[in-house]
Amino acid sequence: MPHPLDTFFAPSSIALVGASRDQEKIPGRLLSMLRKNEYPGKIYPINPNYPDIDGLACYKTIGEIAAPIDLSVIIIPARAVLGALEECAAAGVKNCVIISSGFAEEGGDSAAMQDRIVEIAKRTGMRISGPNAEGFMSEVQKVAATFSPTVDVKPGHVPLVATTRRVGIVAQSGGIGFAIKHRAKAIGVAISYCVSAGNESDLGAGEFLDYMVQDAATDVILLFIEGIRDVDKFLAAAQRAAEAGKPVIVTKVGRSGAGVRAAASHTASMAGWSAAYDAVFAKYGFIVSNDMDEAVAIAAVLASNPLPKGDRVAVLTVSGGAGIWGADTVSMQGLQVPALSAGIQSEIKQWMPSYGAAGNPVDVTAQGVSMGGLQRSIELFDASSEVDATLVIMSFSSDTRMPFKEAELKPVISAQNKPVVFYSYTLPSEFARRELAKAGVVILSGLTHVGVAMRRLLEYSRFKLAPPADAASLPARDLSAHLKSPRMSEADSKALLREAGIALPDEVLVAGRDALDAAIAKIGFPLVMKIQSPDIGHKSEAGGVRLNIATKGEAFSAYRDLLESVQKHRPHAAIQGVLVSPMAKKGVEIIIGTLKDATFGPMVMVGFGGITTELFRDVTYRPAPVGAAEAEAMLGELKAAPLLRGFRGAPKADVAALAKLISQLSLLAARLKDEVSELELNPVLVHGEGQGVTIVDALAVRPK
Amino acid sequence: MPHPLDTFFAPSSIALVGASRDQEKIPGRLLSMLRKNEYPGKIYPINPNYPDIDGLACYKTIGEIAAPIDLSVIIIPARAVLGALEECAAAGVKNCVIISSGFAEEGGDSAAMQDRIVEIAKRTGMRISGPNAEGFMSEVQKVAATFSPTVDVKPGHVPLVATTRRVGIVAQSGGIGFAIKHRAKAIGVAISYCVSAGNESDLGAGEFLDYMVQDAATDVILLFIEGIRDVDKFLAAAQRAAEAGKPVIVTKVGRSGAGVRAAASHTASMAGWSAAYDAVFAKYGFIVSNDMDEAVAIAAVLASNPLPKGDRVAVLTVSGGAGIWGADTVSMQGLQVPALSAGIQSEIKQWMPSYGAAGNPVDVTAQGVSMGGLQRSIELFDASSEVDATLVIMSFSSDTRMPFKEAELKPVISAQNKPVVFYSYTLPSEFARRELAKAGVVILSGLTHVGVAMRRLLEYSRFKLAPPADAASLPARDLSAHLKSPRMSEADSKALLREAGIALPDEVLVAGRDALDAAIAKIGFPLVMKIQSPDIGHKSEAGGVRLNIATKGEAFSAYRDLLESVQKHRPHAAIQGVLVSPMAKKGVEIIIGTLKDATFGPMVMVGFGGITTELFRDVTYRPAPVGAAEAEAMLGELKAAPLLRGFRGAPKADVAALAKLISQLSLLAARLKDEVSELELNPVLVHGEGQGVTIVDALAVRPK
Repeated sequence: MPHPLDTFFAPSSIALVGASRDQEKIPGRLLSMLRKNEYPGKIYPINPNYPDIDGLACYKTIGEIAAPIDLSVIIIPARAVLGALEECAAAGVKNCVIISSGFAEEGGDSAAMQDRIVEIAKRTGMRISGPNAEGFMSEVQKVAATFSPTVDVKPGHVPLVATTRRVGIVAQSGGIGFAIKHRAKAIGVAISYCVSAGNESDLGAGEFLDYMVQDAATDVILLFIEGIRDVDKFLAAAQRAAEAGKPVIVTKVGRSGAGVRAAASHTASMAGWSAAYDAVFAKYGFIVSNDMDEAVAIAAVLASNPLPKGDRVAVLTVSGGAGIWGADTVSMQGLQVPALSAGIQSEIKQWMPSYGAAGNPVDVTAQGVSMGGLQRSIELFDASSEVDATLVIMSFSSDTRMPFKEAELKPVISAQNKPVVFYSYTLPSEFARRELAKAGVVILSGLTHVGVAMRRLLEYSRFKLAPPADAASLPARDLSAHLKSPRMSEADSKALLREAGIALPDEVLVAGRDALDAAIAKIGFPLVMKIQSPDIGHKSEAGGVRLNIATKGEAFSAYRDLLESVQKHRPHAAIQGVLVSPMAKKGVEIIIGTLKDATFGPMVMVGFGGITTELFRDVTYRPAPVGAAEAEAMLGELKAAPLLRGFRGAPKADVAALAKLISQLSLLAARLKDEVSELELNPVLVHGEGQGVTIVDALAVRPK
Repeated sequence: MPHPLDTFFAPSSIALVGASRDQEKIPGRLLSMLRKNEYPGKIYPINPNYPDIDGLACYKTIGEIAAPIDLSVIIIPARAVLGALEECAAAGVKNCVIISSGFAEEGGDSAAMQDRIVEIAKRTGMRISGPNAEGFMSEVQKVAATFSPTVDVKPGHVPLVATTRRVGIVAQSGGIGFAIKHRAKAIGVAISYCVSAGNESDLGAGEFLDYMVQDAATDVILLFIEGIRDVDKFLAAAQRAAEAGKPVIVTKVGRSGAGVRAAASHTASMAGWSAAYDAVFAKYGFIVSNDMDEAVAIAAVLASNPLPKGDRVAVLTVSGGAGIWGADTVSMQGLQVPALSAGIQSEIKQWMPSYGAAGNPVDVTAQGVSMGGLQRSIELFDASSEVDATLVIMSFSSDTRMPFKEAELKPVISAQNKPVVFYSYTLPSEFARRELAKAGVVILSGLTHVGVAMRRLLEYSRFKLAPPADAASLPARDLSAHLKSPRMSEADSKALLREAGIALPDEVLVAGRDALDAAIAKIGFPLVMKIQSPDIGHKSEAGGVRLNIATKGEAFSAYRDLLESVQKHRPHAAIQGVLVSPMAKKGVEIIIGTLKDATFGPMVMVGFGGITTELFRDVTYRPAPVGAAEAEAMLGELKAAPLLRGFRGAPKADVAALAKLISQLSLLAARLKDEVSELELNPVLVHGEGQGVTIVDALAVRPK
């Protein structure tokens, strides 16, 4: 299927604006890289100072070239860039990459120049990547439109390629993007493209991601971002990736205070709030990794294996100690290393000496290797119903010896039904990498990364894009009457929720002592009384709450006390009255909230009450709205989730009712995104199965 | 200072029992390795089948050699080993390494042979390592007493050495030990020794550790264990390491179910309970790592840097994206990346172009490198009072270019006062490793490992061996009268604790209805009543507890109800009576327990009540006894520790009283280690500062 960026990534012709004869400097290196990597299309160097460069005719201006130009790579001083862009547009150039620095990242006048670039792109329809970009490399079409030293090809170098499936890399930072490529290629992972986004004046990471998602030559995507600017394109690409089942491994930096501070200045990006990013990643099944080698290991495992059907791992080794370490490592990731049946053990024992171990980890020993025990065990596990994946743990450091014969291993790997992951506890030799690459095997050398990668593979195999929220579960109503005041009390907030269709307990707002009797008659004992004022956020701290009131006498004195206490603590607060509510029956305490993220808009949050949220940070987020299924998935992510499943003999909680409430609140937050900045239900009590939930307190916050 | 193992690690003469001319096989490889690594002492090959091997006279038996033998390396079939050992002992051989397999790891008769080896060592005083060992390598004395392929030296190979300080490796698994050495040497970490312990018939990991701790040529120790057998030697070595300030990085495997299963068979070791190991490691300040590259990174950083004086890190880079990633990574490890002062920023700005960033991370940019900005910044940070360590983040992949000049960098690094850690986001080239090694710099290539290593360095700098428990805080008393029954009730357990000198609330055990009045008069209202029986572990579940009793009438009916309820639930339980206790005043809920680990003996555990222990596993252990200072350190390790520090406006808790109680209980557990297998105080309520603690419930469990 054609994509608008096809001429960008696979240009038939490239103009180099600012080409140079000096290959030691960046402008000169661009031409040299294109040719070393055997770019098959036309190259037009542009530089008024040379008649020719390296055997190619050199043009004074882009207008001189009387031929169509798919891509213009611009590497000239910042002040000359705008003029060059206008010339490119006039000449009908389809795409530009601006390598030059000195725009938004410098601020002031330089930032204003970047605004002009945006304007040119919009006006002319020419697509522009950068400025401050490191360009891109297409290994599919042999386009090295970058000065990155990592694409410098040494004469006679034969690339190591172990995987048939290819990994595409999209990175806002060129340094990181090409470093990921460097590491991936070193272990034999085939690459389709590596593109750096730079300042993203026009083309952004979201649109590049979209290209990789739709590109048939890309099977797995590695994404490195500081902050997304083209949010809508990014979200559309994420949705497509999830629908197509194309895995995206994402690293998002700018998570710490210092990281955010730096990201804000670097390429002038908005690092944003990382919890919101993680929520979006979770929604689309993106695989998050904060470490480069880990991310590459995950990509390597995805590019060279089918997805597992379960969590049971066979650990196969020749070193007892390494086997135990491997079993520990995958177990710590929550995978199973089951003891094998007597039947399968006796089969394995044929291929190992008496001091081997057939339990799991399976230690065939060095002698077992010469008996063919390794590859026979791999075959056996691949066919067995007892395990879902195999982890092979070996020393692959030798420059001369291989524990496998290519002719024997290759058919086993080609026919594999389950993941088979290879780890070397010694540093693997280049010889071993190349020998195993012939059978389609990547050797990994970080054991923790292997464990994480196998875990992520399982999670990815289980991921399902949640069905969208059911808008009908919250009827469309005009809520404007409830959204007039700039600050809202609990009673105001609950009135809004009730009107929107969210179920709440019957409550009475008592504005004067005379109305208290009727309220008590309606609510019944025991009851709760809470002062109501849009000016008082924390009612308890202002002495504004009385619980468990059991008699009329208590109720009347509580009414008086509440007003007196608030009068003392907050003399200037506007008092609406006292809210009389029934004491809620017991339940598991939950907090549900919504807020608005600067990048992704409304988000919904859920966590348990008490100290779990504050001390253990046991909360989870999703972009709003979520459906009930996604809400249940959120609850399942919480460490304290067992509290809902009948903990210590308690009855199972009404998770269905809770999930419905989360979904409804998230729908409301999405509908009112411009009128309400935060909604908080805290606490919500979740009763036993079939008994529903009770919203005890609620607050809506209006935008400032 | 001489060490009993000096002749083992630095032998003047070596006999090779089972030497062979066939260098393809392990027996032949041993001689070849010794010579390739230029062993300077005498070598005596022993094999009745050859007159000479490779130019060396070959002996029929060890008795033929009329010279002292420091070390005999034995690689012959298992059934011939015992005879060879007797001959070695008769010939006065000081030490043996048995490479041969087929002993305890096979079980049955083979295991019995290993018992005979132990007996020979005890009887003759000859020290024996193995069987089933991979031997050792001393890089200090050039002794390659191993067949490990990792010590095979290629002709003309010049080792990469970046550190002057050396790392010693002790590993129960030879495969892992030499793999660690392989990885460490590949990045330029100097090694002193690498020793594998195998089945540890006589010499064990504890004694080898002790050698490294006392050895002047070893500055940092890497320890890999499945389970410690020579526990006393291990603990003595750990104590010495802590006192000497010599860091030990430890990997303990056999942490998962499958790992324990495998470790139990592999080298027949007892993997033990990993929480007990972690408790021992914490006591002695061992640095725990579960990943090989991480462990090597920590060793590299320790071997090439002074300890930091604080937690503030300057991140110095030439790539904006990599700098942010670095700042995030160290921040996630709890280190600070502070914004730099205007003064220091203006100094840095002299050495970078306008589009650089001087904040922190500091991005001097590629152009800043050519202005000398990198090493000037390192110098500046080293002298500055604003940071405590520098993380340099670069691409070191070039085979020809270096961002530093050796002559300029070397003096900076030689004079460093603070850690300076170098990370390459691209894979570092061998060229770059060797160039930087000249200045004493190790290049690391895993960013997460760098962050962890910098964190561990800080923790190690802060570690202090806790003073021993003060025995006088719990007077020595004869408790035998309280230790007669095989099962103990709460009242029995509390009587034991009281007699031992631990403060408990006044309580009365009421054995008959007639005594209730007097008990109430003594305890006062509100009070608690609990059924007492050594046969009832969970009183609440048997309906045996009544709380908050406020009147005499309630007390008498509670008394009747308790007996009835227990009669119904547990008709065969022997009832001692009802324990009448005061309702405890409020406090933070704590659990303190002791138990007995099979390897390390009595341990003390502390955690918070409620769900934190069960769902968040927020508990910590130490070997008993602990002093009050160590008990406070334990409390500080808990994630919920803020609950004791005045959480959400609550008063600060009486941590001193709690620490004293933990110490006392641990002293008691240590003293009664043969009489009591578990003690549990659950809950203990910790009141406000100066208000003490209340032990609400207690249980002592007698050994089975």
